[in-house]
Amino acid sequence: MPPRLLALTQGDPAGIGPELTLLAWRQRREAALPPFACLADPEHLQRLAQKLALDVPVMPCDWREAPALFATALPVIPLHHRVEVEAGRPDPRTAPGTIESIDRAVAAVRDGQAAALVTNPIAKSVLYAAGFAHPGHTEYLAHLAADGGPAPLPVMLLWCDALAVVPVTIHVPLSAVPALLTTELIVATGRIVAAELTSRFGVAKPRLALSGLNPHAGEGGALGKEDDAVVAPAIAQLKAEGIDARGPYPADTMFHARARTGYDAALAMYHDQALIPIKTIAFDEGVNVTLGLPFIRTSPDHGTAFDIAGKGVARPDSLCAALRLAARMATYQDGAGA
Amino acid sequence: MPPRLLALTQGDPAGIGPELTLLAWRQRREAALPPFACLADPEHLQRLAQKLALDVPVMPCDWREAPALFATALPVIPLHHRVEVEAGRPDPRTAPGTIESIDRAVAAVRDGQAAALVTNPIAKSVLYAAGFAHPGHTEYLAHLAADGGPAPLPVMLLWCDALAVVPVTIHVPLSAVPALLTTELIVATGRIVAAELTSRFGVAKPRLALSGLNPHAGEGGALGKEDDAVVAPAIAQLKAEGIDARGPYPADTMFHARARTGYDAALAMYHDQALIPIKTIAFDEGVNVTLGLPFIRTSPDHGTAFDIAGKGVARPDSLCAALRLAARMATYQDGAGA
Repeated sequence: MPPRLLALTQGDPAGIGPELTLLAWRQRREAALPPFACLADPEHLQRLAQKLALDVPVMPCDWREAPALFATALPVIPLHHRVEVEAGRPDPRTAPGTIESIDRAVAAVRDGQAAALVTNPIAKSVLYAAGFAHPGHTEYLAHLAADGGPAPLPVMLLWCDALAVVPVTIHVPLSAVPALLTTELIVATGRIVAAELTSRFGVAKPRLALSGLNPHAGEGGALGKEDDAVVAPAIAQLKAEGIDARGPYPADTMFHARARTGYDAALAMYHDQALIPIKTIAFDEGVNVTLGLPFIRTSPDHGTAFDIAGKGVARPDSLCAALRLAARMATYQDGAGA
Repeated sequence: MPPRLLALTQGDPAGIGPELTLLAWRQRREAALPPFACLADPEHLQRLAQKLALDVPVMPCDWREAPALFATALPVIPLHHRVEVEAGRPDPRTAPGTIESIDRAVAAVRDGQAAALVTNPIAKSVLYAAGFAHPGHTEYLAHLAADGGPAPLPVMLLWCDALAVVPVTIHVPLSAVPALLTTELIVATGRIVAAELTSRFGVAKPRLALSGLNPHAGEGGALGKEDDAVVAPAIAQLKAEGIDARGPYPADTMFHARARTGYDAALAMYHDQALIPIKTIAFDEGVNVTLGLPFIRTSPDHGTAFDIAGKGVARPDSLCAALRLAARMATYQDGAGA
């Protein structure tokens, strides 16, 4: 069975997403990429390829045609919205096309026309200026997944070959973390991580390692009470549910090579506790995975990078890793569902 | 000129310090160690060497005799206190000897009998039980350095070949960090780091990179105000004083190999922000350096490890790195002072 097609969104067309898409397709063989189709404006991509002197034939097509085209051209599912924008100059008028790309990519994955969703970076501020009412990319995907019902809890997992790590709280000020970190949130996150490590990563008995919130995991309360009062009960609850959860460990001792062999995923209590180790280890090859959704979604672990967009210096390593991981997760999911 | 002698403290005699001292001396040639003398009870070290079947001749001596002995025996400056303790079983009765070792090592460095201080780990709880009134090892050294005057601000620097990083706040609960982090503290820390990178690390024009407190360095205030309100003014002040200080940078982007080439030391705003990257990169070889003191002090970047003490499994890598770095710093200091 050939690998099924991935649906790649355009992302903000003034960011580096479009050029990364062209660069990734050019590297499809060396980087061992699975076939993908991008939801974008083919003419915008053609102009960009010309500007950057990238020899990438851009081929408008539909989902059925895309797989056979991939070997010789970049398959593009055309948006209804035209994209007129200069690289590096974000423009709220591009928002409808950016959102259409996400909507239709999600629909294609949910309809089975594509195996998984890979998203190029968007800029929230650009979408906000156009009236977008969701806090961010991931929350919007959870909204789409909800079908009008209650939205699922999306869980961010950062992944590279050497480490999978989940921040339990994410894009909040550091001072807000202690109040936001609850036993319930840690348990809910741990359940999703354990379940999807099995269903989408092929790990039969996932081992979770949880960090403490405080230095030295609180050192018995001397350096903070939350590790005993909030994190430890969450670990006990996860264990009671049959999940192999351990900790709380001092976060600084969890991420060296020897320690990483002891777990399949680490749960960190806040953004930098999770992002520092993975970006230290794999700055260019990290992948952002959203767990908790009814479909697979990966994305490169960087932003729109307007400052370098259109200059031909952006590196597609993370997008390539996101494409490979999405295909791998789809294979496990297909296997698990069979 | 031969390298000057280092003064190594005993540390808690029930912890791994004594066996690391024996192991380090055994590796003195392979690990390219500078000569050192340990302030300890020679008979305790002899018994431990016998128990662990380590062929280490322990030689009681004074400071003048020690350098010539180092090639063939471990030079030990005898404590007035006898040490009777079992490895792994901490005992408050050992506290007077532990403190004597620190006091006399500091005195030897200040008198010029030794070039620098290297400390084995102590256990605060053991010293507290014996009436010790200082918050920790480093604060006690600052107290000794004060000579009855106001104590200097000790600054913790974590060092390995690939990274030097300073936590501006250290052993406090995470929830206490935002209130403790002031512009004044960051500036005072930055001044000491810049000055000692020059005087004790031989960096003529030190480049400091400062992290933000919040994810994405606050993202313009959306993820916390402190980066603009507290960290940025500190950087401006350091710059105004002629110090090459940059940031605030998102902490997660500062520690990969390419980023590390851009600075000589990173200033992180709290414990895990500093300790996670260095322990991820160099778990066994990290060195803890105390800046801000009138003498050089390094120590291994681990604790007493009572759970493995006396079992012959502790690794002396970090102690060896601490010894080498102390000698290197002493050489730079001698050069800078000449």
